[in-house]
Amino acid sequence: MEEQEGTLPQKADFSGWYNDILWRAEIMDVRYPVKGLYVWFPFGFGIRKRVYAILRELLDRDHEEALFPLLIPEHEFMKEAEHIKGFEDEVYWVTHGGTTPLDVKLALRPTSETAIYPMYALWVRSHADLPIKVYQVVNTFRYETKHTRPLIRLREITSFKEAHTVHATWDEAESQVETAIERYREFYSRLNIPVLISKRPDWDKFPGADYTIAVDTIMPDGRTLQIGTVHHLGDHFSKTFDIQYEDTKGQQQYCYQTCYGISERSIAALISMHGDDKGLMLPPEVAPVQVVIVPVIMKKREEEILQAAKTLEEELTRAGYRVKTDNRDIRPGAKYYYWEMRGVPVRLEIGPRDLDNDVVMSVTRSGGKEPLPRAEIVAEVSRKMTEYVSALHERANTHIKEHLFIVKEQEALKERVSKGVAAVHWCGNRECADRIEEISGAGVLGTEVRTDLIDSSDGDCIICGKPGSVVTLVGISY
Amino acid sequence: MEEQEGTLPQKADFSGWYNDILWRAEIMDVRYPVKGLYVWFPFGFGIRKRVYAILRELLDRDHEEALFPLLIPEHEFMKEAEHIKGFEDEVYWVTHGGTTPLDVKLALRPTSETAIYPMYALWVRSHADLPIKVYQVVNTFRYETKHTRPLIRLREITSFKEAHTVHATWDEAESQVETAIERYREFYSRLNIPVLISKRPDWDKFPGADYTIAVDTIMPDGRTLQIGTVHHLGDHFSKTFDIQYEDTKGQQQYCYQTCYGISERSIAALISMHGDDKGLMLPPEVAPVQVVIVPVIMKKREEEILQAAKTLEEELTRAGYRVKTDNRDIRPGAKYYYWEMRGVPVRLEIGPRDLDNDVVMSVTRSGGKEPLPRAEIVAEVSRKMTEYVSALHERANTHIKEHLFIVKEQEALKERVSKGVAAVHWCGNRECADRIEEISGAGVLGTEVRTDLIDSSDGDCIICGKPGSVVTLVGISY
Repeated sequence: MEEQEGTLPQKADFSGWYNDILWRAEIMDVRYPVKGLYVWFPFGFGIRKRVYAILRELLDRDHEEALFPLLIPEHEFMKEAEHIKGFEDEVYWVTHGGTTPLDVKLALRPTSETAIYPMYALWVRSHADLPIKVYQVVNTFRYETKHTRPLIRLREITSFKEAHTVHATWDEAESQVETAIERYREFYSRLNIPVLISKRPDWDKFPGADYTIAVDTIMPDGRTLQIGTVHHLGDHFSKTFDIQYEDTKGQQQYCYQTCYGISERSIAALISMHGDDKGLMLPPEVAPVQVVIVPVIMKKREEEILQAAKTLEEELTRAGYRVKTDNRDIRPGAKYYYWEMRGVPVRLEIGPRDLDNDVVMSVTRSGGKEPLPRAEIVAEVSRKMTEYVSALHERANTHIKEHLFIVKEQEALKERVSKGVAAVHWCGNRECADRIEEISGAGVLGTEVRTDLIDSSDGDCIICGKPGSVVTLVGISY
Repeated sequence: MEEQEGTLPQKADFSGWYNDILWRAEIMDVRYPVKGLYVWFPFGFGIRKRVYAILRELLDRDHEEALFPLLIPEHEFMKEAEHIKGFEDEVYWVTHGGTTPLDVKLALRPTSETAIYPMYALWVRSHADLPIKVYQVVNTFRYETKHTRPLIRLREITSFKEAHTVHATWDEAESQVETAIERYREFYSRLNIPVLISKRPDWDKFPGADYTIAVDTIMPDGRTLQIGTVHHLGDHFSKTFDIQYEDTKGQQQYCYQTCYGISERSIAALISMHGDDKGLMLPPEVAPVQVVIVPVIMKKREEEILQAAKTLEEELTRAGYRVKTDNRDIRPGAKYYYWEMRGVPVRLEIGPRDLDNDVVMSVTRSGGKEPLPRAEIVAEVSRKMTEYVSALHERANTHIKEHLFIVKEQEALKERVSKGVAAVHWCGNRECADRIEEISGAGVLGTEVRTDLIDSSDGDCIICGKPGSVVTLVGISY
């Protein structure tokens, strides 16, 4: 791409930085000729592939992957009243095949409850068929009329991982909700993304759910990004789609269900959390290139240096690293810039002096330059990777701590949420929530907050002063 | 599912067998409430996942995976005249977002040339950007008005692997066509599916291509299934979409392109080629379960036997096999039936007598029962797998040989193509081809046949008798 044009905006200008990093690091091409649809560059796809491999690994422990159709017939889509109300304005409709109008309009799934549950009604017969724990990774669609943004608010969500489970009892479904939350926590921990987990207020739960638990993170500009949700569906959908099982006494019973999803917003969070003014900083597990070798050529010893680089690449590749040697005929500085932009964890430089000294010069993407003994290179690179992951972890945690505020006074609220997330006490009344949102210009994210970062004991409602009010997160969401 | 209902039709009744195996082996559920759309059961998805892992492995050698949007705006879709003619009757159109009519109609991709090439026009600047070798695995759509059939003729092709390459010269593109053919040959060889590769006649090439090379196999009923195509696109699309590069002399030149695809028909072929009257026979590499252990319980020694089964499972799992122990409380015969249906390569039975004799009883899915010494079990199972793969290979090759006929006489043609593929000599004139199709009730598949199975020297045209005519395949296609 047009690498050399201008420079990456500083990360303090997050919106500018985010738009630029997408093409400069070759994650997404935003020039596709339809609003809200984007192209995954190969490099970006390489990140996506590895992120979703982690997600699949975690789910494959006790879920099964399947695949359901994209197109949902209107009559199924319209069955669950609350659900359709939540989606009807943003559903794309297929109305024609060739030049022929279709008898039944087909919705592009915005989410797959209404595609999957008619099948579950056929799959579930007896208690022995339960639980069902199935997931799929699919493209879903929303006709977004608001401002679209790559990976965050799009019209084709290319990578929606959605799990749908069926249980005999409400309690079992609740326990599955807890399992899902733990699985998501583990997922984001693997990506070194700190999360805030809370229960969405009733008016903001998934259309058709008993309750919704959400996973949010705080972006560099202090706004929150919802990067996962877990829904207890009760028996709403099983009653609508007639998903029943015969219990041990021979009685027909309605099932209880959950569903939970993660989209490519996980990758928006990954990019944003770890990047800096120079570009991406990718966790090694999801970095398409983990080690880049830059031969620093002196004409006289060119062959010797290239050979040393080759041997080094082979040794590290054998040790299991994804290694790239950059032999392009451009100056080393341009190579450093290029690979720093793409978030490669460790750069190794090898020049005449290094050869003479039996060392390799290492530069870690999080900072720090150090010569490493050539003979110990595999162990030394492993040590560098560990240091690097610690640095990412540290940076991310610092970021969250610096953007999470305990707010006791109404007067401080607006200023605080302009910088991050406020934890306030709220009595649970809708009127007080409306007032919080009015004062702050932000939204009530949720209660029952699960985090060690703040004291979660009860207090006086920030609006009405009612004692025994619960800790509640307030923030401006993407 | 409803396992016990009736029995699998014999494979000689291929159509009945195929329809039944899909649900009996839990590959696809055909009960989704829209014609031509099907659901991948988890077991079927497990096969699909492994088949596509092979395909990705082969392409990742020198291609990059990317991802382009599903929705193609009408103005891009309509740009290439021949191409649109080939697809216009079978394109699904999205016309509404919510209740709002869209300004620009959006096509669901039937294939992605018109989604990808506007981006390539942006990506290619100079000769240094070439070649581009990118692929994606996506869902594509065809509004099929003919009879639909799972995995073979569907409205949502859930698993289309399409590669799109860009080159500086026509010859380089031709050489890429050859590479692609070799890659596809390797892919089907890994799946033990024998293929017939030929050049499609001009009237049957891909809309907008210079020429098309196709990969066909012969199904159990003698009909052919196209399971891969490779197209040399010349500069048709690069001229339409303005894909140009600056050559070393500073001149703007149009690029030359290829594209090649494989869909889930590869899985239809896999299932059909290797199955028998008892169900699937899966190549170990793509079998979700490679070894099933069935404990043959005698009440007195139940615990001892279950423990032995567990140890056995652990040992084989450590050795890298995908192993399942079937501890269900049903009779052993029902378990045998169940796992044979699902094509598990090796079954191991372990009962009191086996324990006493330090053996495990093995039954290979291709036939053969043999006690294996317990102490050597890993090596012995490996030997069994090798035997099994040879048997699959042998069976498949025999099948192709028995369904490929050299036909010299017009009179024999119709009868032969009712049983398989006929190799005839054809002078290359369209009139003679029409006559071949008229007589045979079959189609001309292609010339320049690449196979060792038949002598490919020239001969007299089966219609007009012209000498020096080329070997041409004729068959009834799915």
